[in-house]
Amino acid sequence: MTMSLLHHHPFSAASRFVRLVLAEYDETVEFVEEKPWVRNPALLVMNPAGTLPIFVDDNDTVVSGGSVIAEYLVETKGARMGEMRLMPEHAADRAEVRRLVDWFSHKLHGEVTNYLVTEKVYKRRMTTAEGNNSPDAAAIRAARANIRYHIQYIGYLASRRNWLAGRELSLADFAAAAEISCVDYLGEVPWDADEAAKAWYARVKSRPSFRPLLNDALRGVPAATHYADLDF
Amino acid sequence: MTMSLLHHHPFSAASRFVRLVLAEYDETVEFVEEKPWVRNPALLVMNPAGTLPIFVDDNDTVVSGGSVIAEYLVETKGARMGEMRLMPEHAADRAEVRRLVDWFSHKLHGEVTNYLVTEKVYKRRMTTAEGNNSPDAAAIRAARANIRYHIQYIGYLASRRNWLAGRELSLADFAAAAEISCVDYLGEVPWDADEAAKAWYARVKSRPSFRPLLNDALRGVPAATHYADLDF
Repeated sequence: MTMSLLHHHPFSAASRFVRLVLAEYDETVEFVEEKPWVRNPALLVMNPAGTLPIFVDDNDTVVSGGSVIAEYLVETKGARMGEMRLMPEHAADRAEVRRLVDWFSHKLHGEVTNYLVTEKVYKRRMTTAEGNNSPDAAAIRAARANIRYHIQYIGYLASRRNWLAGRELSLADFAAAAEISCVDYLGEVPWDADEAAKAWYARVKSRPSFRPLLNDALRGVPAATHYADLDF
Repeated sequence: MTMSLLHHHPFSAASRFVRLVLAEYDETVEFVEEKPWVRNPALLVMNPAGTLPIFVDDNDTVVSGGSVIAEYLVETKGARMGEMRLMPEHAADRAEVRRLVDWFSHKLHGEVTNYLVTEKVYKRRMTTAEGNNSPDAAAIRAARANIRYHIQYIGYLASRRNWLAGRELSLADFAAAAEISCVDYLGEVPWDADEAAKAWYARVKSRPSFRPLLNDALRGVPAATHYADLDF
């Protein structure tokens, strides 16, 4: 039996989502850092979409994609977690979790995180041969406009529910927090825009599963001063 | 008890995906046709993402999004279907189904279907006030280049497996066929490019669940001559 493995990058939000779920489940895995901006034939064999994360379970099952891996972990490791399995019992509640995971992983990601991480992190890491090195100011402006709506929507949910998808902590909270934590590292979350969103993030951020993310550091791109501060 | 309801559009591929799953499960629902290119406040209340389809179950549960509704249907209606429940039993097989549903609903959709349906269907339906009426030739060219890779990938899967995700017919086949059927209506599938993909599509297309899709007709945009032909 080998140890399970996660191919990831610290600023791949989908990778952060899976790291959080693994930590919530107390799963110990080996981490392999990859460059998301480089076409890697060995990774394409495992995941033709060419995206991170890729999870290799200790029985050699290969599972790709943030939400797909999260559902796989719920099904294979979550059973012993009871209330903490991160997926509610009833179909309608599960649908709400999945709607929000999709919202954060695709909509928030596409409208905010992807722009900021590409422009402010990946482009600094690329060699000239690997791609364009000059940040696109229009993409950064779009992300800064869009993040306000997303923070307000998180606040709207957080002020009406115990956790984002309902009564129980769920995959939706970690899908959201994974995206927000990337944006927050870069100092781009307008925390003064919504008190309820800020209070929700403080609760997620103070969980033990979050600690490794708060230790992520990026050569040449220092974290915003409040990034690791639990009382931000 | 009211009848359940699907808000959809005939050229929303995600709506077609759900229509196919409903038909496979012999579920009778009421259909309400919406205009995906118009911002509809009543729909935004049900689905803040503003996308179709939206399913309203007979107990008034509202579920939004193709793959989210599909999983909900598997969980609530699929139990009595046995082998035909469209989701395999084992977690690793389920992960493969979800990886492919994601691939077809996001990657194929974003690289092919969305371009073609927007440019060749939705823009013809829009009033000038609703948006730009002149098709974007570059978007159509991109879709025509991308569809070849996707057809080859479907052929690659179909030639190695009984159905796209493995031994059993699954959500992956219907997520793929929903996208392909929109593209095929518009005559944009290069069927001569891959025999295995064509044979797979012929098998899905000949299922009774497919018949309503083959009857979809669009005023002003006639179907490709072979669209409803089971022996194309």
